Amino acid sequence: PLSKLSNVGTTIFSQMTQLANENEAINLSQGFPDFLPDSELLNHVDYFIKKGFNQYAPLGGMIGLKEEIARKIENSHQAIYHPESEITVTAGGTQAIFTAIASFIKKDDEVIIFEPAYDCYEPTVELFGGIVKRFKMKAPDYEIDWTAVKNLVSEKTRMIILNNPNNPSGKILKENDIHKLIEIVKGTSILILSDEVYENIVFDGKQHLSICKYPELKERSLLVASFGKLFHVTGWKVGYCAAPKSLTDEFRKVHQFNVFCVNTPIQLALAEYMKKDEHYTHLNQFFQEKRDFLRKGLASTPFELLDCEGTYFQAVKYDKISDKNDFDFASELTINHKVASVPFSSFYKNRLNENVIRLCFAKKQETLEKALENLSKV
Amino acid sequence: PLSKLSNVGTTIFSQMTQLANENEAINLSQGFPDFLPDSELLNHVDYFIKKGFNQYAPLGGMIGLKEEIARKIENSHQAIYHPESEITVTAGGTQAIFTAIASFIKKDDEVIIFEPAYDCYEPTVELFGGIVKRFKMKAPDYEIDWTAVKNLVSEKTRMIILNNPNNPSGKILKENDIHKLIEIVKGTSILILSDEVYENIVFDGKQHLSICKYPELKERSLLVASFGKLFHVTGWKVGYCAAPKSLTDEFRKVHQFNVFCVNTPIQLALAEYMKKDEHYTHLNQFFQEKRDFLRKGLASTPFELLDCEGTYFQAVKYDKISDKNDFDFASELTINHKVASVPFSSFYKNRLNENVIRLCFAKKQETLEKALENLSKV
Ligand SMILES: CSCCC(=O)C(=O)O
Ligand SMILES: CSCCC(=O)C(=O)O
Repeated sequence: PLSKLSNVGTTIFSQMTQLANENEAINLSQGFPDFLPDSELLNHVDYFIKKGFNQYAPLGGMIGLKEEIARKIENSHQAIYHPESEITVTAGGTQAIFTAIASFIKKDDEVIIFEPAYDCYEPTVELFGGIVKRFKMKAPDYEIDWTAVKNLVSEKTRMIILNNPNNPSGKILKENDIHKLIEIVKGTSILILSDEVYENIVFDGKQHLSICKYPELKERSLLVASFGKLFHVTGWKVGYCAAPKSLTDEFRKVHQFNVFCVNTPIQLALAEYMKKDEHYTHLNQFFQEKRDFLRKGLASTPFELLDCEGTYFQAVKYDKISDKNDFDFASELTINHKVASVPFSSFYKNRLNENVIRLCFAKKQETLEKALENLSKV
Repeated sequence: PLSKLSNVGTTIFSQMTQLANENEAINLSQGFPDFLPDSELLNHVDYFIKKGFNQYAPLGGMIGLKEEIARKIENSHQAIYHPESEITVTAGGTQAIFTAIASFIKKDDEVIIFEPAYDCYEPTVELFGGIVKRFKMKAPDYEIDWTAVKNLVSEKTRMIILNNPNNPSGKILKENDIHKLIEIVKGTSILILSDEVYENIVFDGKQHLSICKYPELKERSLLVASFGKLFHVTGWKVGYCAAPKSLTDEFRKVHQFNVFCVNTPIQLALAEYMKKDEHYTHLNQFFQEKRDFLRKGLASTPFELLDCEGTYFQAVKYDKISDKNDFDFASELTINHKVASVPFSSFYKNRLNENVIRLCFAKKQETLEKALENLSKV
């Protein structure tokens, strides 16, 4: 049959994980933890399943979970969302992003994205007939030139997609970035889709500046987050979208026909678990220790460390080691040195190669040690 | 913001469930069981969660579950699907339907549906710019006039959506229907999306004729089913789509960017549970007893029973009781007699009213008894 996404193959994360498995390599490619989630959370699931909460949830989500989400957002960013009408529980961050794009992007609408970009944004925009405009953030700093971004804006610009903290670069937005963004969207009807799934993984005492902190942005924004990243359960597939009522109304029209609703007992378990703030306030520290361990280990190798302000990914340059492109280098690293990574070029439409690969450090100490041992021999 | 689905409100199932809750009515509207799933299945979930299977599944689904699905289909319909490349686990039947439409329907493509129709088909087709052509099946028989269907077919017809057994009418397709359908699609490139989520709920020794039994149809079909309906866990949100590789390839391109993958521990639990065929082969009998109990109770009331060959819904005509339209009647029945139902008009685009409402009998004996007590007083 004629393909609607003829340029699309299998996502790089699946490809690299498969290559890792085939080669029995340590998998630092796809972003997921290899340690157990908190048993308290696991017990909650069992409790609600056995108690008999196994039928459809309301389409927007279980009220208890939406309330906890609203409370978390208010505590973290002093922003108010109404749980019933402004928060929607989704089947993971990805489904929230897909549904947000589906709800608002029509044929010929323009959407601005920042590369390196998570790989679902662009094909989803294209599926709805939208046109992607790209600003390239580049190694080693991945800074945004807001004048160049402003030049991408036209009458047809319908949405700007942010990913903050940025996967794969680990870069976070600063006050200056936010103010430039506010200037750009002021007086326009441009929407913002802000993918903040790594919001609780920010390092060195820096602040995650959520889109919802800024009223001029919040009013036009769909904020996406993920419990998979927050509680080390990427396989549970629960996230959410917070947005003003008028945007949520449209979002839910699509959501109800896309997935209708999300796993009930897991929603209840998450709600119960979120009652204790300490279940996520320690995350920055928890992952910073892992980042620092990885960085320390790599410092004595020919790999060059780029900055890592947030996310659980460390970007490294390898041009002292090889002049292969990053895809070939990553493949060889997996096959010959048994460490799988993700080549940065897969986050650029034109496959820009700057000899950078991404290593996931959401791994137990033992895994990181083994990976370092292998990497030190490259 | 400008709405992409300006005609769409909140799905009727949410509306009626809300009305039921507000009025403390017995909820026979939205289709879900009010009894516990098998504790063996529940224990499996706990087992896999505690064992540490909480990270991303492969995008097509866990291999063990895909194999069990293929085995079930082969045993039930003598049709072969390759687990790795032809079966995709989805976040419920709804997400499978949405993704199938998203994968193949482009602007101005025509899609034929049969009314009364489950409410997600039409808005999803419209979201992708498709045009819906409707054949109306009508009370009391809901027969399909295949000559009329053939007249709906044009050069632009891209897909026919079937729902067999049909929700809400309870009608199943017969050999004659299938042969007429084969004649219509022969030599065309029309795809078939076959929503068979009630495939294991068929009564009186009748046979569910899956689309996959017929090679001329299977080769062009996306077959959708649901574990929520199969194992009484509508709130778990797991289903699947089985389709030939060339169709599955396209389906997965969209699937990976829509939800990426589906809950891992629940997939593992379902796979384990499916190893025993008796976990679903008794379903026809199980629900037939409930249907018969409801029908027997209603026989002595002024409600008129329509045929119910499959699904867990009984359609009843109420014109001996009231000349109100079905939406008003269903609302009043909820408020005054504390039994919630779904008006059939909500399954027709033009809100065709034939004084028919739908009662869900996937309920425990006690619930059905109470509902009958209330209904007998109408
Ligand atoms: C959905 S698979 C990709 C997971 C992830 O967030 C990443 O590796 O970047
Ligand atoms: C997704 S809510 C609707 C459930 C159902 O299948 C029905 O009531 O028809």
